[in-house]
Amino acid sequence: MSVEQVLDELKVKITKKLPVGVTISNVEFEGPELVIYIPEPKKFADNGDIIRNLAKDLRKRLVVRPDPGVLASPEVVIEKISKIVPEDAGITSHYFEPDTGEVIIEAEKPGIVIGRHGNTLREITKEIGWTPKVVRTPPIKSSTVKNVRQYLRDHKDERKALLKTMGRKIHREISSKDKWVRVTALGGCREVGRSCFLLSTPETKVLIDCGVNVGSDDNGTPYLYIPEVTPINQLDAVILTHAHLDHCGLVPLLYKYGFEGPVYCTPPTRDLMALLQLDFIDVAAKEGKTIPYESAMIRETLKHTITLDYGDVTDIAPDMKLTMHNAGHIIGSSIVHFHVGDGLYNIAFTGDYKYEKTRLFDQAVNNFPRIESIITESTYGGSKDIQPSRNEAELHLQQIVKETVNRGGTVLIPAFAVGRSQEVMLVLEEAIRLGIVDKIPVYLDGMIWEATAIHTTYPEYLNSDLRNLIFHKGMNPFLSECFEQVDSVEKRKDLLTNPRPGVILATSGMMNGGPIMEYLRAYGPDAKNSLVFVGYQAEGTMGRRLQKGWSEVPVHHNGRTDTIKIDLQVHTVDGFSGHSDRKQLMSYIKKMKPRPELIMTEHGDEKSCLDLASSLYRKYRIETKAPMNLETIRLV
Amino acid sequence: MSVEQVLDELKVKITKKLPVGVTISNVEFEGPELVIYIPEPKKFADNGDIIRNLAKDLRKRLVVRPDPGVLASPEVVIEKISKIVPEDAGITSHYFEPDTGEVIIEAEKPGIVIGRHGNTLREITKEIGWTPKVVRTPPIKSSTVKNVRQYLRDHKDERKALLKTMGRKIHREISSKDKWVRVTALGGCREVGRSCFLLSTPETKVLIDCGVNVGSDDNGTPYLYIPEVTPINQLDAVILTHAHLDHCGLVPLLYKYGFEGPVYCTPPTRDLMALLQLDFIDVAAKEGKTIPYESAMIRETLKHTITLDYGDVTDIAPDMKLTMHNAGHIIGSSIVHFHVGDGLYNIAFTGDYKYEKTRLFDQAVNNFPRIESIITESTYGGSKDIQPSRNEAELHLQQIVKETVNRGGTVLIPAFAVGRSQEVMLVLEEAIRLGIVDKIPVYLDGMIWEATAIHTTYPEYLNSDLRNLIFHKGMNPFLSECFEQVDSVEKRKDLLTNPRPGVILATSGMMNGGPIMEYLRAYGPDAKNSLVFVGYQAEGTMGRRLQKGWSEVPVHHNGRTDTIKIDLQVHTVDGFSGHSDRKQLMSYIKKMKPRPELIMTEHGDEKSCLDLASSLYRKYRIETKAPMNLETIRLV
Repeated sequence: MSVEQVLDELKVKITKKLPVGVTISNVEFEGPELVIYIPEPKKFADNGDIIRNLAKDLRKRLVVRPDPGVLASPEVVIEKISKIVPEDAGITSHYFEPDTGEVIIEAEKPGIVIGRHGNTLREITKEIGWTPKVVRTPPIKSSTVKNVRQYLRDHKDERKALLKTMGRKIHREISSKDKWVRVTALGGCREVGRSCFLLSTPETKVLIDCGVNVGSDDNGTPYLYIPEVTPINQLDAVILTHAHLDHCGLVPLLYKYGFEGPVYCTPPTRDLMALLQLDFIDVAAKEGKTIPYESAMIRETLKHTITLDYGDVTDIAPDMKLTMHNAGHIIGSSIVHFHVGDGLYNIAFTGDYKYEKTRLFDQAVNNFPRIESIITESTYGGSKDIQPSRNEAELHLQQIVKETVNRGGTVLIPAFAVGRSQEVMLVLEEAIRLGIVDKIPVYLDGMIWEATAIHTTYPEYLNSDLRNLIFHKGMNPFLSECFEQVDSVEKRKDLLTNPRPGVILATSGMMNGGPIMEYLRAYGPDAKNSLVFVGYQAEGTMGRRLQKGWSEVPVHHNGRTDTIKIDLQVHTVDGFSGHSDRKQLMSYIKKMKPRPELIMTEHGDEKSCLDLASSLYRKYRIETKAPMNLETIRLV
Repeated sequence: MSVEQVLDELKVKITKKLPVGVTISNVEFEGPELVIYIPEPKKFADNGDIIRNLAKDLRKRLVVRPDPGVLASPEVVIEKISKIVPEDAGITSHYFEPDTGEVIIEAEKPGIVIGRHGNTLREITKEIGWTPKVVRTPPIKSSTVKNVRQYLRDHKDERKALLKTMGRKIHREISSKDKWVRVTALGGCREVGRSCFLLSTPETKVLIDCGVNVGSDDNGTPYLYIPEVTPINQLDAVILTHAHLDHCGLVPLLYKYGFEGPVYCTPPTRDLMALLQLDFIDVAAKEGKTIPYESAMIRETLKHTITLDYGDVTDIAPDMKLTMHNAGHIIGSSIVHFHVGDGLYNIAFTGDYKYEKTRLFDQAVNNFPRIESIITESTYGGSKDIQPSRNEAELHLQQIVKETVNRGGTVLIPAFAVGRSQEVMLVLEEAIRLGIVDKIPVYLDGMIWEATAIHTTYPEYLNSDLRNLIFHKGMNPFLSECFEQVDSVEKRKDLLTNPRPGVILATSGMMNGGPIMEYLRAYGPDAKNSLVFVGYQAEGTMGRRLQKGWSEVPVHHNGRTDTIKIDLQVHTVDGFSGHSDRKQLMSYIKKMKPRPELIMTEHGDEKSCLDLASSLYRKYRIETKAPMNLETIRLV
């Protein structure tokens, strides 16, 4: 049966189920969704259960949109909304999405826009034709988010055509009679970096992650040239676990190679990914390295990205459903679960995950409707890779800050912009707020501020304590006045030349460049200052050298290299990692429901992958494998 | 460096090494060989060591051929040869191979053609320009061998062009910097039938075997459609372990799908393969099944086949050398050894093998210059799969024949045309010759006679005892007057209607059709006759039913199905298998030199593959795997 026939049948089926007098004008697959176009949005608004019942019946992700013809002009809509919504709602902007018929209303107090029992919102819906969505105005504006959204609006027609093509491909008829499922390791096995897996059936091929090994001497690319993957344009989809470059750094390269399919990820992953990819090619260019792709390919990636929220069960191919679950690693990070065939097989890829509740996130999900096998990260998979608890780590950090400030010194903290920085910010904010340390300024330099802004844009991806604090207690710790963005050259110069007690959080996390190097140059020679490592320092990096106690290091400055004497105190605070430590990895599997039949280990050095695999087998008697890159495992 | 440049350099290098006055006219890659064309064959004949020294220096398979221009016409050559060679040499024919410049002289007494210390042959060489090769006139004429050779002569120009194309591909420059070796299971893993492996590097892809599962309800094809293999025309080569259909039955299909590369196998494998493939599509047509390929594709296969003898180290790709070794399973059967890269990795695929000396063959080779891993068959890999010794089996068979003949009965032996039939023929011939059983006729029906003829064409592929018997003692047991070919409809009719004491060896081996069914119809109801199984009877076959003791079976005859009462005695004589039993499999590995790092088991049901793999690990502490079809193992 052709897709056209399927759509015709669906139209008949839907029409039959509608109440008398309610009509639809068209149905169409757009990406993974079945879109129902309606001529009279008001009638649908009055029959709230229609969609829910239809979706259950059809087992599809349904979206209802007004016919483009019935949409009033934005000016008229804004006028109407302003008449309905009380002024104290604090509406800050309206974003119109003509391709979806949605208007996104940003307001400082979304509750007032929604109204009691949703009354105000329902009134808006009836009046404007457009589907209103209300979001809280992000307390910190992110230029990334703004640019991404603007770009997508500017290319809405092209995107709509793409979604239609993708939708038809997703809902194509299954042509193969064979039934099997395989996973091929393309990168990130028995190593950290360039994570990339291929999940394939006779019908479908999807990539899970497509990272780059930024530390590699070579190009750090996964094995994308092998016949299992080529030609790239035959891939059905790319699914991303999270936005770190070792998981998504080379997605734009796929588009350069001819990929035309969708990228699935959460909304925060999409925005952070764009930020980090742009920074990646920017840094590469500055360091005189070969740039693997141009920024146009990053925009191409955006254009093809379909965002999913945790828990959305989504058809991504005729024989494959994808669901994303919280991984607790960074904002938007996901454990991606695939249901293959009609009950044939279920597999999850953890990506990086934290099986412990942190200040930012809930602990990673390990409860699935069904699961036969899981591919788990193993960064801390070695039997001795035990980390201190988050609580111990926080006390340790507070202690260092307290002592340094008490002696009039400054604390330098090199940190990755995404994840670790925000955790440390929350710890410091609380310590200052509760008076554990003095009221000192915390300076944020590099991409940290922008990454924080993305966090405040997606509060629903933070844990419930933090959401509660922000929304119900009106206390957003990221907005604390202790934080100060270093947003100009002058401000940085001032900080560098006039040392003062406080904390400076700056990138890069392993001190391989970035503003942190300027601070090291200024603060390194003075023994009353401190340098605190809160993340892993890879062999060969400047961070690692300082950790080892080097007393002199070379620092590039204005085109020449100076040797800096290091007299400040160097500390390492373990326990802030976004990765599960060995105990957490073991416990994640132990408490997993249902119990998997097969566990594969990856994303760890060879020893860690093998150690975790054999320990899991010995302890829980579940079959384990530590695949090598370029290997293919048959699952069923 | 282009292939042209390589050839130019080789020409200069070779010219420098030649004695003064000796010249060459051209060098060219033809298939895996480097061919040196010479204008004066006499001078090369006078300098016997030139070639051997050059080959050693260049590490290439060298062939020297006279310029086509210096070759005399066949009539003149025949005339000249007849003048030089004494008449009692019994020359029976001359085959001219203009593409190689060889003339093959078939003689009943090859020794006389060669002459004392090769003097006569050297004289011929000097006189005729062609390179003479002397072979013994096969005592039984094989129409297959004749047809194959005639076909190749008829297409010599096309074949020469093909060999040149293949030669240039084999000697291309290596383009990839990566170094890895992988093996992908496409069929025959945890099952018997459709054996097929892919061995791949960044540069090269070769198939090892491409069999069909004749017993399959489906099409019994290996997984040839997966991306690792497609497009088929990008394969570098196909290497065949032996001629049984479960190892080579679908090679012609590859040509149908666009393959244009070479098939490597031994000369007997080539001829037997053609015989069995033609029979395969013939039987399929008769049974009304879909024919996977037309006979034209079998001819295409022949045209692309390059034969290698045991021990020939041959370049088959820029990073791969192939060597075939005796496997002792059927005539021409090989253990195929690959040397990958320049010392990067060595792997052997056993195909089917017998690690015991039999009447026909020496035991399988398990001694290699280098080896890291081996993929071994596991047909009898289960811990209880112990077979009686060959000696016990022979005594058992003789006993049954003796008793049956003594009571005036006839012995029916269903057997595969290739391998088992010839073994049983030798046992019966000896028993009759030595008077252990009476002088009875042994009738051969089906393809057995033709298969036997192919055996006598390639005596160098039989074991030394048999060669000694044939060549030095002048006693060819296959020519014994006890054997009688059922070569006409009348003869078969006579045998069916006038029962007489004796043995009838007929195909098919599992009684799924073939002439054996006619004999069962005629001899089945009489209790004084015997039916003896000497080979494995698969579940679902008529043979298996009779083995289980069914007293009535349906037999198709002249388009209708009759029910036949079975009263004859049914025996199973184990121990004639061409497969190693469990003890032999274990012993093959134990005595293997050098000791491999990794063993993979295949060609056995799931239990046998897993049992053998775990036993080998437990006993010898060598890493083992029992791969599944569709899996890829990384070797290095």
